[in-house]
Amino acid sequence: MAYNILTVSREFGSGGHSIAEKVAKRLEIPFYDREIVDKIAVETGFSPEFIAEESEYAKSRSIFAYAFAFKGAPGIMGGLSPWDYLWTVQKKVILEVAEKGPCVIIGRCADHILKDRNDVLHVFIHADKEYRAERVITHYGETDTPALKRLEEKDGKRGYHYRHFTDKVWGMSQNYHLSLDSHVMGEERCVDLIVDLMRG
Amino acid sequence: MAYNILTVSREFGSGGHSIAEKVAKRLEIPFYDREIVDKIAVETGFSPEFIAEESEYAKSRSIFAYAFAFKGAPGIMGGLSPWDYLWTVQKKVILEVAEKGPCVIIGRCADHILKDRNDVLHVFIHADKEYRAERVITHYGETDTPALKRLEEKDGKRGYHYRHFTDKVWGMSQNYHLSLDSHVMGEERCVDLIVDLMRG
Repeated sequence: MAYNILTVSREFGSGGHSIAEKVAKRLEIPFYDREIVDKIAVETGFSPEFIAEESEYAKSRSIFAYAFAFKGAPGIMGGLSPWDYLWTVQKKVILEVAEKGPCVIIGRCADHILKDRNDVLHVFIHADKEYRAERVITHYGETDTPALKRLEEKDGKRGYHYRHFTDKVWGMSQNYHLSLDSHVMGEERCVDLIVDLMRG
Repeated sequence: MAYNILTVSREFGSGGHSIAEKVAKRLEIPFYDREIVDKIAVETGFSPEFIAEESEYAKSRSIFAYAFAFKGAPGIMGGLSPWDYLWTVQKKVILEVAEKGPCVIIGRCADHILKDRNDVLHVFIHADKEYRAERVITHYGETDTPALKRLEEKDGKRGYHYRHFTDKVWGMSQNYHLSLDSHVMGEERCVDLIVDLMRG
């Protein structure tokens, strides 16, 4: 293959998760999403729910939030805030996973964490809000919060989190080799294109 | 064709101009770059040199700069600053060109100006600085200013200009349907991909 690893960053509801999963299946390589959360949980003692939320979203909660999520000994964080500690372990886990061999990693600033490797293709998937709002309702169901507001909240948090830890703007074309509008391109075309590029 | 019009925005030295020109040739449709400058010159009385600089770059010059460039009657700007007047005419010219039929338009915020048409594909071309610096020297020759500094200056001005007139961030993936790293993808692959998408 031309690239060993693919990182996929995505706007909420854009179908980036599904595209990443299909690429991994087509290339017959592991797809890391939940597994990364589980690995971080083992290393940190944080609950998977806390990690799933905090490893991609804003560092916006009160310092007390983690007291309920943290099952390990307080001393192991070495004076770091829970979020900085989580970031340190997240980086370590992603670097380790990448060392193991070809794979697809979704979200969690993997594009930034693996930016110094030259065998990694970085892709960003986005789409217009109307398309994503419809997809969010179809895939995750309706809630009291309107779908458009859910998109804005989720992406706002992803953007804040990315900015905080990478010092770059989330979604800037220059952070990725390829940015695709999944609505205009169509999910299958996105998959085909990425598979072709990965194969070289 | 799936799309009638292609807009190409690009980082300085990324090869976006060459890619756009090749796509136009392959699709046998007009490529608008210098022609837009000439049309604006006819409408405004500004010199082509002033337009080439000011229609893509920063609104950073002294108000006196245009006195030397402006050949028309001062009254025709209707109280607008020369840059706002230029923007108004630029918008009008790009909208008129788009009305004439299929074409490729490079730069000049055409992605924003044509954002409400649904038969336009918007592409952004970028690449790492080292690749672009090398290309700039090969294509435009060396100057007293180091190539990396020339990139930064040119892109800084493009970004400022885009932000000023569109209220959006230049280079954000979400402004385009497709953003491509021309170094990683290779120029020919970029051309093929865009031609395929345009044809649908």
